[in-house]
Amino acid sequence: MTMTTWLDLSDDDLFGVDNLPYGVFSRVGEAPRVGVRVGDLVLDVSAVAALGDVGDGPDLASVWRQSTLNAFLAQGRSTWQIARAWLTEILTDAVHRDGVSPHLYPLAEVALHLPLAVGDYVDFYASEHHARNVGRIFRPDSEPLTPNWKHLPIGYHGRSQTVVVSGTDIVRPCGQRKPPTAPAPVFGPSVRLDIEAELGFVVGGPATDLGSPVSLADADEHFFGVVLLNDWSARDIQAWEYVPLGPFLGKSFATSISPWVVTMEALRAARVPLPGQDTPPLLPYLRGEPTTDGANTAYGLDISYEVDWNGTVVSRPEYRDMYWSPAQMLAHTTVNGATTRPGDLFGSGTISGPTRESRGSFLELSWSGAEPVGLDDGTERTFLEDGDVVTLRASAPGVSGRRIGLGECVGRILPARP
Amino acid sequence: MTMTTWLDLSDDDLFGVDNLPYGVFSRVGEAPRVGVRVGDLVLDVSAVAALGDVGDGPDLASVWRQSTLNAFLAQGRSTWQIARAWLTEILTDAVHRDGVSPHLYPLAEVALHLPLAVGDYVDFYASEHHARNVGRIFRPDSEPLTPNWKHLPIGYHGRSQTVVVSGTDIVRPCGQRKPPTAPAPVFGPSVRLDIEAELGFVVGGPATDLGSPVSLADADEHFFGVVLLNDWSARDIQAWEYVPLGPFLGKSFATSISPWVVTMEALRAARVPLPGQDTPPLLPYLRGEPTTDGANTAYGLDISYEVDWNGTVVSRPEYRDMYWSPAQMLAHTTVNGATTRPGDLFGSGTISGPTRESRGSFLELSWSGAEPVGLDDGTERTFLEDGDVVTLRASAPGVSGRRIGLGECVGRILPARP
Repeated sequence: MTMTTWLDLSDDDLFGVDNLPYGVFSRVGEAPRVGVRVGDLVLDVSAVAALGDVGDGPDLASVWRQSTLNAFLAQGRSTWQIARAWLTEILTDAVHRDGVSPHLYPLAEVALHLPLAVGDYVDFYASEHHARNVGRIFRPDSEPLTPNWKHLPIGYHGRSQTVVVSGTDIVRPCGQRKPPTAPAPVFGPSVRLDIEAELGFVVGGPATDLGSPVSLADADEHFFGVVLLNDWSARDIQAWEYVPLGPFLGKSFATSISPWVVTMEALRAARVPLPGQDTPPLLPYLRGEPTTDGANTAYGLDISYEVDWNGTVVSRPEYRDMYWSPAQMLAHTTVNGATTRPGDLFGSGTISGPTRESRGSFLELSWSGAEPVGLDDGTERTFLEDGDVVTLRASAPGVSGRRIGLGECVGRILPARP
Repeated sequence: MTMTTWLDLSDDDLFGVDNLPYGVFSRVGEAPRVGVRVGDLVLDVSAVAALGDVGDGPDLASVWRQSTLNAFLAQGRSTWQIARAWLTEILTDAVHRDGVSPHLYPLAEVALHLPLAVGDYVDFYASEHHARNVGRIFRPDSEPLTPNWKHLPIGYHGRSQTVVVSGTDIVRPCGQRKPPTAPAPVFGPSVRLDIEAELGFVVGGPATDLGSPVSLADADEHFFGVVLLNDWSARDIQAWEYVPLGPFLGKSFATSISPWVVTMEALRAARVPLPGQDTPPLLPYLRGEPTTDGANTAYGLDISYEVDWNGTVVSRPEYRDMYWSPAQMLAHTTVNGATTRPGDLFGSGTISGPTRESRGSFLELSWSGAEPVGLDDGTERTFLEDGDVVTLRASAPGVSGRRIGLGECVGRILPARP
């Protein structure tokens, strides 16, 4: 089924009507509000919704007039589906052209904002290739995977208030680091500043109650969509601080996400089986089960990444290589009775594959600095230098066979402040 | 200077006019709003403020009419001082008696709510005695303190949405644990459910900018006040999961705080020097400096705790024994450029002293279960049993020599849900 739109879009546009991601935009002098991207345009959905009812659902015009997606996230899956059907209708049936067209703005003329007010942000460690690489680099004298790794998706809480939208400059963080031969830690700008190419999952649906876990089968009621996520990491600060309570200042200075939230609905055709979780057997609450449509409650996603460093694509991680599924991350997070609520954000952890060309961090790509990465401009890199620009891009198969885009997540490194 | 009030309060009331803590209350059928506790009464401060101006400051009647303290927290220190002066005036000058009295409600007639919408919650590990005890118990073959411990206040982000107000029942969490001799983890209710008696610091003042650390000297502009905090901990879940990224489900099911936020202003007379941070020398951003009033930017607090287990006081920790100061926790959290904003919450970490009678967790009190704790009812305990009730209480010297109370933080353990 290929949908055609009355908009002037090429067939290979990654933001065709199969995609319809949500974000928050503003025009000069106007308040930020929810928008939907189509091609290189932003649809002012609250303005169009105000022209007439969107199905029999809630008042989406006012839900979309807000400065974050959170009110829309809270509506839940049936409303998201109503909204998607309505968007598809108004963008494919030419009868709506005259009503809708005045509310489409060129991307170049709007500002894009952080799309959600982040509730709790949990970052996982779901790639076996990444965990093995980091284990070898950080703990060379131990087994690369800790004994718990294949029994549970390891995660930790990150700093929600330093999640920033793509395009926000990243100031090189200062902190304590201890050079291996130094007798005591020194203070100063991080000298091992890194990225982590991740997928972020945006939670919606009603807030759950304390003591009421979300099962694997119910996870789809709570995942609204995905963003590209760059978990900037100061490896030297992290290495000194992280035992025994985990990463803190090595991560908390900034986490960038892309401005467009691509919905789980748009990613239905991207679902793939996980690479395999047979050994060791999982405890029941983490065990995927077949669904009536022949799929599995614990599914992966076929999303192809590019990691671009100053204009050179240095890596092409594949999200389908991840060991743990998003539903398993949510089920694990809530199995102790912890709540989840609209606006929560889950990071997948670095997406790394089995080859050097599919590693999602520079720590791994440069093997802790031992193997520099050559860029097209003739320079070599190990970790980030001031002025460097990193861009994550990704795309996935859409529901009608054409590819859909997750857009870009961009950050430029500014020098540390004195 | 002893202030006298026209209220009928005994001299040793822990909630006299030296205290004046803020909380959020509601009467039956009415919306939650900010209140101030005096004796066993709650003052409806927005109602009184609406009768006339509170100094020349902002419109506190509307700030206090909200369902959390966050808007008041955002006002900053000069407004907090104006508010305190006004409260002192209306409660000590009998000319206000007739205007104020109708807005005082008995505590027994109101419901108390979570006093703030928690932003980011960071939990520290600031007691050397606690860290040494836990190190000996969890890592018997290593040095009890990790090499970084005396160089930085170790902390990690916790789950902000599961911070609950005192009185909320605590459902025993389920999760994975791995008995030492078992070949694989098992799933079920935690069998080593514990408390951590902590002090929570509530952040106010304007949100800071990314890349702009808060110095030790500026920390007082951001700390609004303190609460009692019980960091419920499932030790078996924690032990299995916490390497390498830190505690997650072992902590995230619930964190209880007391309903009354005692202000830093009310605790001025409780400031004490830290027990000592000479060896090793601290990096400059963590080094306390003398202030013009003869104190130090890195100060401790003289707050005496009681840990009550089913009616028996089993421990009396002293907050003055803590190694790291609150200002050091805030300076460290932001030194990498991370922001802080009103509503952020810092936990001190378990408050433990040098003796058994001053240990702030049952893990330590029972030495991991090896030394049961006798209760007055003739029973013995190691970890928490279903139906157990734990109450934290604390008090401190007030500004006029009388003691002020932090109130209570109570939680009862309910059986795990099937």
